[in-house]
Amino acid sequence: MATLDVDPGLGPDRDRMLRLLHALRDSTSDAGGAQRVAWTETWRAARGLLLSELGELPVEVTTDAAANIWARLPGARRETVVIGSHLDSVPGGGWLDGAYGVMCALEVLRTLAGQRELPCSVALVDWADEEGARFGRSLFGSAAAAGTLEVEEVRNLTDRDGERLVDVVARWGVALDDLATARAQLEPVAAYLEAHIEQGPVMERSGTPIAAVTGTAGVERHRLTFTGETAHSGTTPIGFRHDAFVVAARVAVAVREAATRHEGMGTVGVVHVEPGIPTAVPGVASVVVDLRHRDARSLQSMLTDTEAATRDAAEAEGCAWQTEPLFRIQPRVFDDRLVAIVRGVCGALTGKEPLVIPSGALHDATEMATAVPTAMLFTSSSNGLSHTRKEDTPPEHLKLGLDAFYRAVRQTVELVGKSGKSLDGVAGARASVADIVRGKSGEVES
Amino acid sequence: MATLDVDPGLGPDRDRMLRLLHALRDSTSDAGGAQRVAWTETWRAARGLLLSELGELPVEVTTDAAANIWARLPGARRETVVIGSHLDSVPGGGWLDGAYGVMCALEVLRTLAGQRELPCSVALVDWADEEGARFGRSLFGSAAAAGTLEVEEVRNLTDRDGERLVDVVARWGVALDDLATARAQLEPVAAYLEAHIEQGPVMERSGTPIAAVTGTAGVERHRLTFTGETAHSGTTPIGFRHDAFVVAARVAVAVREAATRHEGMGTVGVVHVEPGIPTAVPGVASVVVDLRHRDARSLQSMLTDTEAATRDAAEAEGCAWQTEPLFRIQPRVFDDRLVAIVRGVCGALTGKEPLVIPSGALHDATEMATAVPTAMLFTSSSNGLSHTRKEDTPPEHLKLGLDAFYRAVRQTVELVGKSGKSLDGVAGARASVADIVRGKSGEVES
Repeated sequence: MATLDVDPGLGPDRDRMLRLLHALRDSTSDAGGAQRVAWTETWRAARGLLLSELGELPVEVTTDAAANIWARLPGARRETVVIGSHLDSVPGGGWLDGAYGVMCALEVLRTLAGQRELPCSVALVDWADEEGARFGRSLFGSAAAAGTLEVEEVRNLTDRDGERLVDVVARWGVALDDLATARAQLEPVAAYLEAHIEQGPVMERSGTPIAAVTGTAGVERHRLTFTGETAHSGTTPIGFRHDAFVVAARVAVAVREAATRHEGMGTVGVVHVEPGIPTAVPGVASVVVDLRHRDARSLQSMLTDTEAATRDAAEAEGCAWQTEPLFRIQPRVFDDRLVAIVRGVCGALTGKEPLVIPSGALHDATEMATAVPTAMLFTSSSNGLSHTRKEDTPPEHLKLGLDAFYRAVRQTVELVGKSGKSLDGVAGARASVADIVRGKSGEVES
Repeated sequence: MATLDVDPGLGPDRDRMLRLLHALRDSTSDAGGAQRVAWTETWRAARGLLLSELGELPVEVTTDAAANIWARLPGARRETVVIGSHLDSVPGGGWLDGAYGVMCALEVLRTLAGQRELPCSVALVDWADEEGARFGRSLFGSAAAAGTLEVEEVRNLTDRDGERLVDVVARWGVALDDLATARAQLEPVAAYLEAHIEQGPVMERSGTPIAAVTGTAGVERHRLTFTGETAHSGTTPIGFRHDAFVVAARVAVAVREAATRHEGMGTVGVVHVEPGIPTAVPGVASVVVDLRHRDARSLQSMLTDTEAATRDAAEAEGCAWQTEPLFRIQPRVFDDRLVAIVRGVCGALTGKEPLVIPSGALHDATEMATAVPTAMLFTSSSNGLSHTRKEDTPPEHLKLGLDAFYRAVRQTVELVGKSGKSLDGVAGARASVADIVRGKSGEVES
């Protein structure tokens, strides 16, 4: 398969994309970082900026039952290549996480809209609540579209102020009982492509500006609640105590040890104790444990180890414990034909053997991969940092990423134009994902 | 010395004391327990009930510069025996902690007011903010009166909502810069006596309804803040992390181990992490560590062990750490003559060798002991619980405690009436505190 050569005059405007990212950053951040938390007014402002830009394009803009924003650019075929990411951020997050992918998709959509012939349709999507920062449930919008979101599991989730998800999303026009209708959005979709920053240190360490992504790690995210007995901190001998936070602390240390042992990720990012005063032994403690591994069996081992540590620590302290699964997702492997396309453009643009890596972070692409052929393109992250105001990427990497994303989308559009939803028109896309991961598929892209 | 025999007709009304305690409980608690947190409207309501009762007595009621409420009953001499405790509670606390001592003092004051001759003056005090529940600074009012409160150390303390102590107390008429004037209250004071529940399991285990207290444990209370680096929980390999909560968890486990090793108390009752979401490695974590021991050297050893664990855990994780002392107090030994009086009435009323124990909890008596001769009387705590809505004491113990407290006050009043502030008029009060603790002073009280 020949690389599609893009006329620079017709290609995406890299400076415009950066200007929009800067405008978004400046209007939706404070000294603590990005504040585009889903279901807040700052998020509404971020989406307003996107809608304003989309208003200039010949696209049909709609919002689906899960609050995802869609902008459709019709082509010769009804089959659609979807491109996008999410505008929401964690509190005090970075300017690029999600926003980069949306702005790349916007610039690619604008570029394609200015071209004469589009072999198939293209749609931009801005997914709602990818981060799950407020209710602990990531990938809300994309999971709803993919049909993997169990409404009864999220209905009664509450934020730290006790507000229920069902009530908050209702204020944004989302009725949980109608959420399944969002699935109709995927009916004409032939492929999903997403650009994103790596959010980790692997690419920077290897001097790689852009990379193809093979899939996303599996996640086990659970809230553990320990119940002991509140007591006076000065008069209750240690042997009489049922200190819920001592249990939580031991579990947090065990999570770290399990992650180290299994070479995965393990984090306790949320901690609450009650009554939460200096002079009382905590009677209640809760933590959110987030375990990740790209290998399903190792992920299960980490979970088993954490459960054993929980049981041991709780029993030793005479505390009860409860486990509430907040989010579970299996490791997901992307579509080998689309990964090959992304891999090819990365090689062509860098002139080097392309880096092909798994993602430790979840993405909306994780959900899309369950429903449609999916792939991702990464740009590097400075110092490997994300979910912090220090998140950054060199501008030349952001620009190169846009070029690569545009080429990958253009090739995918050509492929879908030729072959429809089967994607069987790409000559070299025979390599298995295993081959790609092992770097043995150098012949896929010329 | 002969026991003062009290005519039952002139003694305190035990049922009235219990009725008032019940009324206080019913008007200032919710399903979670007592809510008489200092500097709240519920606290104001609790004090209102006290003020209403004091309004029926021939006493002079004033509020000092630290918001302590005083009610003075003049006697033949200006020298004053002060009796009291505190009405404030922790959030979700018990009905008796502090309130029992205030209601005993009220009933004793009422009883003394009805008697013809009072050899010296008696004053009830309701200390402000004994618990320190909101700002982490216990014994606010009694420390101000004792002159041990360093204004600059508390001025900028903040509650969990970021409100500063200086601003909150100002709304209650307390100007920190005038706080030192509260010391004048102690000028005529010859003795301080306080009744309180034990708040621990020692008395119940030994079947003891009332006991004399030898002193209070020393406390080292510090806020430790760890600063690492916020990062994405899915993409940051364990080896790259600077997880502030992992450090806090290791320190919490070390605090527990140090307390066990030194046979003291060690508690982490307050924990906060930032940004506090499931998908971010915490960049900041803070805990409040509360260490207690009745022996000064052991207390120092626990602190040294905790500091070493803090340094080791923070350095291993590449995190910075800061220590902010919130409250430090040395172990305090009560006045041997007054302890002998309390011990004597306990023996006389129970007909058994009296129990004489140290207090693991702090009390306003801890502060008073630095300034005036001081002693305490304990009643038992059911299941050793306090600082919880489950806090309770058998009613017959509460009643016996009132009788014992009345007798101890009456004897102290006689003593002060005879000897003034030197307290040198009590015949048998020659036992050293060490003798009392060792139970070798059976001859003190007949």
